[in-house]
Amino acid sequence: MNNKQLTIGLFGFGVVGEGLFRVLQQTSSLNARLEKVCIKHKNKKRNAPAALFTNNAQELLNNQDINVIVELIDDAEAAFTIVKQALKKGKAVVSANKKMIAEHLPELLELQKKTEQPFLYEAAACASIPIIRNLEEYYDNELLQSLRGIINGSTNFILSRVSEQQMDFETALKFAQQSGFAESDPSLDISGLDAANKWSFLLTHAYGIITSPDEIIYSGIENLLPDDTKVAAQKNEVIKLVAQARKLKDGKIAAVILPQLVKNNDPLFSVKDEYNGMVIESGFAEQQFFYGKGAGSLPTASAVLSDISALSYQYRYEYKKLLKQKPSTLSTDFYLRVMVSYVSGILLNPVDFEWIEERFSSNSHNYFTGIIHNSRLIQQDWWQQKGVSLILLPKGIVDKEELAQYRPSKTEAQWAEVFNY
Amino acid sequence: MNNKQLTIGLFGFGVVGEGLFRVLQQTSSLNARLEKVCIKHKNKKRNAPAALFTNNAQELLNNQDINVIVELIDDAEAAFTIVKQALKKGKAVVSANKKMIAEHLPELLELQKKTEQPFLYEAAACASIPIIRNLEEYYDNELLQSLRGIINGSTNFILSRVSEQQMDFETALKFAQQSGFAESDPSLDISGLDAANKWSFLLTHAYGIITSPDEIIYSGIENLLPDDTKVAAQKNEVIKLVAQARKLKDGKIAAVILPQLVKNNDPLFSVKDEYNGMVIESGFAEQQFFYGKGAGSLPTASAVLSDISALSYQYRYEYKKLLKQKPSTLSTDFYLRVMVSYVSGILLNPVDFEWIEERFSSNSHNYFTGIIHNSRLIQQDWWQQKGVSLILLPKGIVDKEELAQYRPSKTEAQWAEVFNY
Repeated sequence: MNNKQLTIGLFGFGVVGEGLFRVLQQTSSLNARLEKVCIKHKNKKRNAPAALFTNNAQELLNNQDINVIVELIDDAEAAFTIVKQALKKGKAVVSANKKMIAEHLPELLELQKKTEQPFLYEAAACASIPIIRNLEEYYDNELLQSLRGIINGSTNFILSRVSEQQMDFETALKFAQQSGFAESDPSLDISGLDAANKWSFLLTHAYGIITSPDEIIYSGIENLLPDDTKVAAQKNEVIKLVAQARKLKDGKIAAVILPQLVKNNDPLFSVKDEYNGMVIESGFAEQQFFYGKGAGSLPTASAVLSDISALSYQYRYEYKKLLKQKPSTLSTDFYLRVMVSYVSGILLNPVDFEWIEERFSSNSHNYFTGIIHNSRLIQQDWWQQKGVSLILLPKGIVDKEELAQYRPSKTEAQWAEVFNY
Repeated sequence: MNNKQLTIGLFGFGVVGEGLFRVLQQTSSLNARLEKVCIKHKNKKRNAPAALFTNNAQELLNNQDINVIVELIDDAEAAFTIVKQALKKGKAVVSANKKMIAEHLPELLELQKKTEQPFLYEAAACASIPIIRNLEEYYDNELLQSLRGIINGSTNFILSRVSEQQMDFETALKFAQQSGFAESDPSLDISGLDAANKWSFLLTHAYGIITSPDEIIYSGIENLLPDDTKVAAQKNEVIKLVAQARKLKDGKIAAVILPQLVKNNDPLFSVKDEYNGMVIESGFAEQQFFYGKGAGSLPTASAVLSDISALSYQYRYEYKKLLKQKPSTLSTDFYLRVMVSYVSGILLNPVDFEWIEERFSSNSHNYFTGIIHNSRLIQQDWWQQKGVSLILLPKGIVDKEELAQYRPSKTEAQWAEVFNY
């Protein structure tokens, strides 16, 4: 038992912070003690001894006994200031702030290098699923063919209500808020930005890619149309918000975060409610699947605790794919197989598409499916307008090398005949 | 790129060995080279250059350029001799030999300590699922409430055929052998010993327990009766061979490997064919699930390759639960909720049971369910005779502290009245 004694200074005492407080009390084998908690409002009543609390950040940062700072506050910029100071003062840092990490990863990498202090954040993506450490430790860059994941519990909870209870989107969102599975301001989740934030640093651990959400094609679930769920149900599929990355033949990585039609033999099909799931295809191991709670105070606190526990044996991320192997880069040259769905009245002319595979029209709802180059989606914003939804088909990312095998036999002239355009 | 150059000496060129050869050829980023392969029959035709092969083990073990020995032979004792020599000669060792590891773990621990050489064996349990490293790295002993897993692909393949295609056991076994999912001598798998071997060292990585298969209650699938599948189907459940371990209130670990009735909301329900799956309950993260191929040449080779890759950054198991935390011990004092099923003609008097919950009798088939202390199963062997099957119920392991909540209201006298015994 030569574990390092950990003395913890905690920022934030919301649901996760309080969860951590409870979890620490019940984890006697860990040589860790909570010394001080910094909160905004000192006089709020809390289920913990008053002497534990302060509203002065420097009381934690300047306390030389404290060797671990755990940062669990909402505000990404304030969090970054705390993390920066803590690392510079020679303290190890544990954080769950995905927005902060996504927005400041290059600086955080630099700070880790300079201060040689560990900075761990397993709780920032997929809470209880040890995905970062698995990507970091287990899958060689070369071997990692693809990752596909449901990494946002709020939107998955909402989509589960929409598909299982036939709730409309607004009702499902309210229900998620009342059940504690969506924030009062849900925009970060439903716009897909939260998933894109997480995906940006998961790409670093998976492939050594340094990127930011605005370099990845992403959308959320706010533009999905009620009829989309019906179309999915007819195909015996469900719509999930799926973050994915796939290694192309040229070694580059195609990455998108879009709603996707998911077949019932896909492990992600059974990931419901606030759960998260990740399917990893690695060169020769074929398909693997990780599943667990992606949100909630105790699952998140438990992931934070695992990081704290790892600090007791001086664990740190080595960013192997970035620093010790040949990092991959994001591809700008691949195709997407999508369904574009739109309410009647909106005029969409699918000239951007390589070709169209299916078309459907009724009085109120229309869709077509087809193949489009990713750059077309970056250049245009027709697919982001209200009344239009863009949903990835099951085999959604198409390598340009594979394009030929999807090419339809019906010519554009024949289509024109059918649809009289 | 300061990765260590790995020069590999490989023992064995069966399906996994040849798989590894292929995988290595396609993994250019790994600084690893296959120097020599030792095989029994040198003149057999193989899909690799003849110059690679030798039948002289010392050519590998005495070659100072070779710094990694990969051992993929069948014979556990011969494998142990190779591993021992290799470690003593200062070479890192990767093995997939579960039988050898289960039978020699204490000596292998001692050898690792003395030689300070890494000995990795991720491929020895659940092939492509990185379960050993997850247990080793991620779950604190204190936090790990239970593990339940399908860890034998052959028996799972057979049980899938029995429940899905209504094959009888003998036909399913033959089909599994023809499909390459069962050995020509399947006794190690169907007796449950293979699962017990794996479970013994998974318990070391999970809880710091050093044990051997004969200290764990285990059985396989060979005694299951045709009617058991019908009973399971009526309950909307399936029978799976499940290895499990559960932390009891007193901190000790109850571990058994038995066929179990699995409900359709259990993640193990959907683990079919040659797949493996593991459900982990950790203190606060609630349920997590890992799923992947548990057998096959490339999935196993891929796990071997991951170990080789880990050697390039000097990774080694730290056996944290054993060496750095307080190790748990196996409990000898817990209860099991079981279904005992038997063909008519066998006389079973359930005097060993605390109480009986259900009884069923027909002309050909009979069963009762009830609660029994684990020591009764160790002392007696009535449940291992032909014509009797013992199947764990869904909540199968009962802590003695929980016993009261299962106690039935019907007294033994009332039961006697019903059944006239």
